[in-house]
Amino acid sequence: MSARWSEIEFIKSLANKGHVADDNLVFGIGDDCAVINQQAGKQFLVTTDMLVEGVHFDLSWHPPEALGEKCIAVNLSDIAAMGGRPRFAFISIAIPESINNPWLSRWSDGVTRMLERFNCVLAGGDTVYGKELTVNVTIFGDVEPKKAVYRHGASAGQHIFVSGPLGSAAAGLILCRDHRNRSYFNTDLAEPFKKQHLSPVPEVELGTVLAESGMVTAMQDISDGIATDIAHLCCNSGVGAIINEELLPQQEGFSEMCRMIKLDSTELQISGGEDYRLVFTVEEGKDRELIRYLERKRLNRVSCIGKTRKEKGVLLVKEDTQIDISFKGYEHTSQG
Amino acid sequence: MSARWSEIEFIKSLANKGHVADDNLVFGIGDDCAVINQQAGKQFLVTTDMLVEGVHFDLSWHPPEALGEKCIAVNLSDIAAMGGRPRFAFISIAIPESINNPWLSRWSDGVTRMLERFNCVLAGGDTVYGKELTVNVTIFGDVEPKKAVYRHGASAGQHIFVSGPLGSAAAGLILCRDHRNRSYFNTDLAEPFKKQHLSPVPEVELGTVLAESGMVTAMQDISDGIATDIAHLCCNSGVGAIINEELLPQQEGFSEMCRMIKLDSTELQISGGEDYRLVFTVEEGKDRELIRYLERKRLNRVSCIGKTRKEKGVLLVKEDTQIDISFKGYEHTSQG
Repeated sequence: MSARWSEIEFIKSLANKGHVADDNLVFGIGDDCAVINQQAGKQFLVTTDMLVEGVHFDLSWHPPEALGEKCIAVNLSDIAAMGGRPRFAFISIAIPESINNPWLSRWSDGVTRMLERFNCVLAGGDTVYGKELTVNVTIFGDVEPKKAVYRHGASAGQHIFVSGPLGSAAAGLILCRDHRNRSYFNTDLAEPFKKQHLSPVPEVELGTVLAESGMVTAMQDISDGIATDIAHLCCNSGVGAIINEELLPQQEGFSEMCRMIKLDSTELQISGGEDYRLVFTVEEGKDRELIRYLERKRLNRVSCIGKTRKEKGVLLVKEDTQIDISFKGYEHTSQG
Repeated sequence: MSARWSEIEFIKSLANKGHVADDNLVFGIGDDCAVINQQAGKQFLVTTDMLVEGVHFDLSWHPPEALGEKCIAVNLSDIAAMGGRPRFAFISIAIPESINNPWLSRWSDGVTRMLERFNCVLAGGDTVYGKELTVNVTIFGDVEPKKAVYRHGASAGQHIFVSGPLGSAAAGLILCRDHRNRSYFNTDLAEPFKKQHLSPVPEVELGTVLAESGMVTAMQDISDGIATDIAHLCCNSGVGAIINEELLPQQEGFSEMCRMIKLDSTELQISGGEDYRLVFTVEEGKDRELIRYLERKRLNRVSCIGKTRKEKGVLLVKEDTQIDISFKGYEHTSQG
């Protein structure tokens, strides 16, 4: 690896690209540990995710900038899902021989762009050699005490909301995987789906606003598809859910895209992973108030898709039938 | 992976093995993030290290318990090197098909044992699939403000100490790598060297006592061999160093072991990595006072091996010659 970045040198070069500062980072990269001031009356939120080549991404078609952004975004999405503000990031990367410096530089640009967009400082990391590209990111956010929104706070009879179209990332993944055989791969129709898979944008702003609203009782991000994610939220809260197919929000062009890739749109919406939207429950009767509150903050993409209830399980109402969809997503391999 | 632990299940099972509690861990495993109280007037130390199969360890001879201990120990050593107390750990693991549950269970036992020994709580993690076993650990320690000991605090004319025998882990690695051809592999002579490589014990107690002493000006852990580690400390502090071969501490039986593995003992002592001892500088004239202070605390294994000086570079005095050994270690692939 003689012409390659050594050890910590790469993480240093990455840190030097960033322009975010934080007074509470006493010492960042360059010693055995980073040193961070603790602030009275604040809590840290900490999340960690490992992404492995061939499992979570495919280097043959994932552009390095987009992959850099996504490595950060999937962790920021966890911070968003508890209502926190991102603060510090730690990145470990195992780099195979096949990765060259220009690729790494473009990947770093994506990492830096996503960190800067959400005001997060790179505070440390580790660079090692590995046969497959593996990236582990740990992100700290902070939140006021008792403002963090957990998965376990929902009660029966509450409104279930999602923060954006469902199934888009899954459609994008299918497009990317088989892009050589898709004549419409480079069309305007395909673009938002590819983007949602390659470089999703975490709902950080919305997450903090929802936490501050005081009307949201439970929340998590949508990483494994709502059939699984709502089931997690319900299991943790000791409730069930009933959601309505007609209410599931779709990206414009989604039905057309599903016809082209020959997949059932409802199936993709309930079991497609990696949308990195938020799913959350709202106190009974507060649904309209929450929508008005978000409109004032110009965050008006949320949709109510159903309600929680006492009876366990997650039911989907589709035309005249009710189908139990609990955990019917694919199990995504990351914690997300 | 049907008969395998899924997703977060493995990290949960790992957390359930532990018995350490921490009042400031508001919420551990099972949501999008862990939630940790910040304490006024404290700083967090944060370190992260990635260990990759075939680069940092060899599954053909590294017992799973010892490997579990080592994954934690290398990070604890970074906390120790700044004088902190370990608090919270986050573990990500990419598990290949070839690893079975009994192996994972034994690895978990090692992880748990090392965390418990140093009072550190497993607060989160991620379990994914990967072709090669990859472990990333992020550890938080805490420290009183202004008590953290950095690499950059040394001045010229100060005493350089190390906290234990040098080169033992490197000798152990050579033994393990070629154990089939070493008739003395299972002898008492070989034992401490193998142990130092397979499962080093981080100097957490010593690190905190040194930081509290107020006499230590700079410190780091010995992960890449002292030729490299002292060079790092000196570069960061803007000084040089002169150390004396005769003063380098050796494990009992080290000379005999070096003859058997046919390696120069001095070479191994200055360039052998992964001892995870501490190297630190002590205010001029305070060397005896520090030794007495440590004796009172029953921590009396430290050895003075030389002094810092204005002239840059790290010199080794060997009989009548002076050799520049700056950065003459092997570059270990991890941050350490």
